[in-house]
Amino acid sequence: MLSGERTFARVSARFASNLSKIAKKPPGSSADASHEVSNRQKLFITDPISPGSIFFLPNGTKIFNKLIQFMKLQQQFKYGFKEVVTPLIYRKSLWEQSGHWDNYKEDMFRVEGHDTSKEEYGLKPMNCPGHCMVFKRFDRSYSELPLRLSDFSPLHRNEASGALSGLTRVRKFHQDDGHIFCTPDQVESEIAKCLKLVDMCYTKVFPLSPELANEVYTLELSTRPEHFIGDVKVWDYAETVLKNILNKFGKPWELNEADGAFYGPKIDIKVTDHTGKYHQVATIQLDFQLPERFDLKYKDRDNTYKRPIMIHRAVFGSVERFMAILIDSNHGKWPFWLNPRQAMIIPVNTKRQGQVDACKDLFLKLRGQGNENSTDPIPLNSFHFNADLDERPEPVGYRIKDALMKNYSYLIIIGDKEVETGRYAIRTREDRQLEHLTDDEIFNKFRELEKHYK
Amino acid sequence: MLSGERTFARVSARFASNLSKIAKKPPGSSADASHEVSNRQKLFITDPISPGSIFFLPNGTKIFNKLIQFMKLQQQFKYGFKEVVTPLIYRKSLWEQSGHWDNYKEDMFRVEGHDTSKEEYGLKPMNCPGHCMVFKRFDRSYSELPLRLSDFSPLHRNEASGALSGLTRVRKFHQDDGHIFCTPDQVESEIAKCLKLVDMCYTKVFPLSPELANEVYTLELSTRPEHFIGDVKVWDYAETVLKNILNKFGKPWELNEADGAFYGPKIDIKVTDHTGKYHQVATIQLDFQLPERFDLKYKDRDNTYKRPIMIHRAVFGSVERFMAILIDSNHGKWPFWLNPRQAMIIPVNTKRQGQVDACKDLFLKLRGQGNENSTDPIPLNSFHFNADLDERPEPVGYRIKDALMKNYSYLIIIGDKEVETGRYAIRTREDRQLEHLTDDEIFNKFRELEKHYK
Repeated sequence: MLSGERTFARVSARFASNLSKIAKKPPGSSADASHEVSNRQKLFITDPISPGSIFFLPNGTKIFNKLIQFMKLQQQFKYGFKEVVTPLIYRKSLWEQSGHWDNYKEDMFRVEGHDTSKEEYGLKPMNCPGHCMVFKRFDRSYSELPLRLSDFSPLHRNEASGALSGLTRVRKFHQDDGHIFCTPDQVESEIAKCLKLVDMCYTKVFPLSPELANEVYTLELSTRPEHFIGDVKVWDYAETVLKNILNKFGKPWELNEADGAFYGPKIDIKVTDHTGKYHQVATIQLDFQLPERFDLKYKDRDNTYKRPIMIHRAVFGSVERFMAILIDSNHGKWPFWLNPRQAMIIPVNTKRQGQVDACKDLFLKLRGQGNENSTDPIPLNSFHFNADLDERPEPVGYRIKDALMKNYSYLIIIGDKEVETGRYAIRTREDRQLEHLTDDEIFNKFRELEKHYK
Repeated sequence: MLSGERTFARVSARFASNLSKIAKKPPGSSADASHEVSNRQKLFITDPISPGSIFFLPNGTKIFNKLIQFMKLQQQFKYGFKEVVTPLIYRKSLWEQSGHWDNYKEDMFRVEGHDTSKEEYGLKPMNCPGHCMVFKRFDRSYSELPLRLSDFSPLHRNEASGALSGLTRVRKFHQDDGHIFCTPDQVESEIAKCLKLVDMCYTKVFPLSPELANEVYTLELSTRPEHFIGDVKVWDYAETVLKNILNKFGKPWELNEADGAFYGPKIDIKVTDHTGKYHQVATIQLDFQLPERFDLKYKDRDNTYKRPIMIHRAVFGSVERFMAILIDSNHGKWPFWLNPRQAMIIPVNTKRQGQVDACKDLFLKLRGQGNENSTDPIPLNSFHFNADLDERPEPVGYRIKDALMKNYSYLIIIGDKEVETGRYAIRTREDRQLEHLTDDEIFNKFRELEKHYK
């Protein structure tokens, strides 16, 4: 039916535009903060040779990788996600089927070969159609549901060049993306689990605005808009389910009446930056339409084929933008586990070989570099801290000040007494108070901090 | 100078074509093996919607991620590499500067927006120009060299569609790519280190053909070809350096007279598949030309600016192709640490609740899933094993046979006696001999295996 087609096209466009908010939302002043902090800490650069694509420098890459490592662990081993790695370019026909070609084309990059074949591809702006392909490829049974796929693919959206800025308005970005394929009666528990992960993330691991106590993030439920597709009964059911989940969840939430997507209601999670401005981070969206469009089905207990429901969800949203929000909140004072500068080791007198040697030994131990002559590989899941050594022939006070300026989490100062006792003087960025710890105690202290995302 | 331009263009083309061998080399029958094993183990699929791009399924993604995790650890904490994340699309002008646009264009994908701007980009087939941009961006000092950048970006090359096959002839692939920017007198020690990593990888961690003992891989030195650019003296020096390194290294090597790239000599590392056919995996290439083309320089001790030398190197080569070679060698019998199916837990009698409960407890412990109700995050660098539980109401013999067919590394069988004693019967895929271990002992055994890449 043509009008159905058109409706779907509109829905897909809205759907795409809603999902795209994850990357598009401008974060006010935080973009500038991320540039300034990046200049000091060498986190990333941008270049007109690839407008809107971030070059993550080694320090920025460390933070980026840690964030993804954290999320992979949670999703895979606590929330039952299975990671996939999917293609970046797909033939035009996929985007026609999903509705993107007609409706989201302006925001997509076209790809084609230089050879005579002239096949036309789209560079993916989101992962959902690829995940639908993975679902569809196998004969699926109810016993496989909920099937939760996660993906950290780079995504591209052709934002207007004038709007590009820092980490927040970009053309290439990564989402901690996930799609849950489930039965109608699994929707409630699945969304409750998504909220649990969001809550853990924003209250326990990334308390962006600790001063806000219980309101570190806000929840919004957007309901059936004036123009919608599908069955009103299904909408009512879905909205009731979401309301029940939000009420059970126990945090305050706001109603965004008639602001849902055409295809289904959604919950948006927002945080505020230091200026009080809201930024959408996580999103949880119910989608009855892509499964229809891709004719997805599973065999139910009664041996009939049924249509699964799809939940689109992201917790960080765009990892790049999430980094900008973190920078806005910490101004470069990274928590230990994320800090590319975790510890600076400083010999009091750089002419005393004993001090320098002790510093070097500690440096190697904290970095977990192992013996250079050994042919054994570095073991899996081992700890390696970003420790540096400042043995420049400068006064010790100068080197301490310099390390503080550079936001090292810990300073370890080794003089004659420390060499003699084997207990090194260690202090935090914030507190001058010195503790005296052995090398093992320092390593274990750091390991506990990193293990628990402190 | 036009002829110089042309020479450079030819050189770049050859350079590109040499590097591209990493992904292009057909591996004989191993492609078919990877398809067959993948079908059994659900490792990956391909689809005409994106020809030559792999969809890694959850099991394949686990292997892919482990390989990259292994290499990142070695490169970062033993060999001094710094990881960067760089853009995938670059304006045409970058590829013109690097010489790719004129010479490698047919193998590249063009990218452009649908908007009116019609900017033209190239989807990167290799990382080197991006890394040159990173080097060039900062005022570099001799004290920063050697600067070793690593990158695991997806790369795209527009291979002819008829040639596409499995994991080996693809259009999208990932390299364990690295570029070392160094001074002339650092070349020797840097290449020696590259060889050390290659050796550790192919003899200790991935002994592809254990029956070949000392000849698990071959080394080839390719020297100055008839058509070359640059100074003969520099060539002679570079070849002497490489020969000295290879001789010191102590493994047999072959001379590929006059088969070097136009821009410099190179060392290729090849392994054989089960049919005896050779496949290039690692490569170490000296490049005097890209630093010239991008006008790269560093400030030397004497305060003058000098041109660094660039070493291109990869150890796996294409990670996708490396996986195909692994599959060819193990036929799906993955070593424990790479196995997406590490342990199958089997209650002898599925009607005995005590047995099923003990199995479930062990299952959760090995997977490290933690308490579902806990709001604590899964700790960083924790161990999580791919354990499964077969509590189907089938005879125990049937379930054991099924797990063996599926190539689980370990089978853990729990009957009444095991529940009573708390010591579970465990056997390997290869050996029927049962050991009796506590849950802690099993976890520790697995941890040691995984830690040390067994």
